[in-house]
Amino acid sequence: MDGDYLYHLGLTKDDAPQFSDVKFFCTGGSALRIGEFAQVVADELSAAGLADVPFGLRPTPIAKTDRFSTYKVGPVLMSNHGMGMPSVSILLHEITKLLHYAGADDPVYMRLGSSGGVGVEPGTVVATTQGLNGLLEPEFTLPMLGKTVTRPTDLDAGLNAEIVAASEGAADFAVLPGKTMGTDCFYEGQARLDGAVCEHEEQEKMNFLRRAHEAGVRNIEMEATQFAAFTGRVGVRAAILCVALLNRLDGDQVLTPVETLMEWDTRPGEVALNYIKAELRK
Amino acid sequence: MDGDYLYHLGLTKDDAPQFSDVKFFCTGGSALRIGEFAQVVADELSAAGLADVPFGLRPTPIAKTDRFSTYKVGPVLMSNHGMGMPSVSILLHEITKLLHYAGADDPVYMRLGSSGGVGVEPGTVVATTQGLNGLLEPEFTLPMLGKTVTRPTDLDAGLNAEIVAASEGAADFAVLPGKTMGTDCFYEGQARLDGAVCEHEEQEKMNFLRRAHEAGVRNIEMEATQFAAFTGRVGVRAAILCVALLNRLDGDQVLTPVETLMEWDTRPGEVALNYIKAELRK
Repeated sequence: MDGDYLYHLGLTKDDAPQFSDVKFFCTGGSALRIGEFAQVVADELSAAGLADVPFGLRPTPIAKTDRFSTYKVGPVLMSNHGMGMPSVSILLHEITKLLHYAGADDPVYMRLGSSGGVGVEPGTVVATTQGLNGLLEPEFTLPMLGKTVTRPTDLDAGLNAEIVAASEGAADFAVLPGKTMGTDCFYEGQARLDGAVCEHEEQEKMNFLRRAHEAGVRNIEMEATQFAAFTGRVGVRAAILCVALLNRLDGDQVLTPVETLMEWDTRPGEVALNYIKAELRK
Repeated sequence: MDGDYLYHLGLTKDDAPQFSDVKFFCTGGSALRIGEFAQVVADELSAAGLADVPFGLRPTPIAKTDRFSTYKVGPVLMSNHGMGMPSVSILLHEITKLLHYAGADDPVYMRLGSSGGVGVEPGTVVATTQGLNGLLEPEFTLPMLGKTVTRPTDLDAGLNAEIVAASEGAADFAVLPGKTMGTDCFYEGQARLDGAVCEHEEQEKMNFLRRAHEAGVRNIEMEATQFAAFTGRVGVRAAILCVALLNRLDGDQVLTPVETLMEWDTRPGEVALNYIKAELRK
């Protein structure tokens, strides 16, 4: 295409040259959190001499902010993706076109999020090996032109191992590989009992969560299968790093103090930064 | 439940009494647009003597804004829902619990959005009669506890007729009842050719869009089936009012000037306000 307006980002093909040095694309749900992460990336890469952040300049949103908020610090591009697979899908289509137009060299995509753990210690970061849908199948399905198209949901095993290795010794919490169930609903779709609608009971919920655990599921969020299927389809190396805020096998209430939860929320970004710094030092 | 933290809204059950007078809940994708709509609601209801908006006070977000931005003007509660069904699903579960705790009396939900038209004049507002999924079926499916649950996607026919009637003579554009296809993807799921991935061609796209038109589809967006299924399941009267920014049967490029598009974007809100004013005057 001659011109291309990346509508939801608010950028055009003409803006692409500014992104030619991008090596890492990090995304997470909340605009607030991705903005905070951008500040940390600026501080840490600057302190390590890995990015140029002149005194007095701070990461500030690029272009539109009503759908996504996008930041760039040297080789690290960041944007929030909202909640759920359709929303992250729009972001991934537009970011991928942008980085393709830019000629960015094999950028790695990392989703940083929070999740409900399944049989893992709260505070653990799960590095997703494969996405499973709500039927516990390793696939992502989407109707296209009136027909259902199904795509696999494996993530890059080599990248997963490199990311886990980069945090060994560097992080004071566990980073564990595991499967991630991605759902289209936070309440009914994740077997919660406290939605505005609920047609199941505690025992059925526990039976399902135990079945998910036996299938290798270590956490549950709302983007894994689309993120894995899309990046696999376009040939982008990608990872999903989500902190488990609780262990659903022990109950649904989050009893952890807010300050601790806020610290845990920064862990996926810390894991990503350990990897980014290791790569940039190579 | 004794306490209930509506996590993504940032409100608790204890906040509910502030919402007991809510009669209308309006929602749309963008935080920016819902904030602009809140200002219009304040001006118009105040001028008509239908809400108390003291000079110097303006609608300001209630509680958290990193997921959703929520506003209230008298009997009208407003919040943006982000993009896609999983995101709007989270909002609807939490708003519905809030209004239930508040004891709000039979509130009407209205989704105000933009969409791609199918065989309608650009600028038309489509009042959805029924949601169709990407397979053109009138149903919403969601995996729950490892099994697929399917719900119908009809919207309240009486409310649809009342909303259309309230804009007759009052709006200088068409408000047409029609079916709405709700998809989980803006690019491949809506048969666009300009996504980062595209496995179909122009002719296949046109064949599908014509087939959708013959099935009664008049516009395409990303929330209709979930919104209709959820509100139907909980027994809330609901409507979806989306402006068609283009007619997909004539092509995918939006050639309309930006100023015109911005005016069109306000039309669903205008239709909703015509109905709200008519109801409040009863």
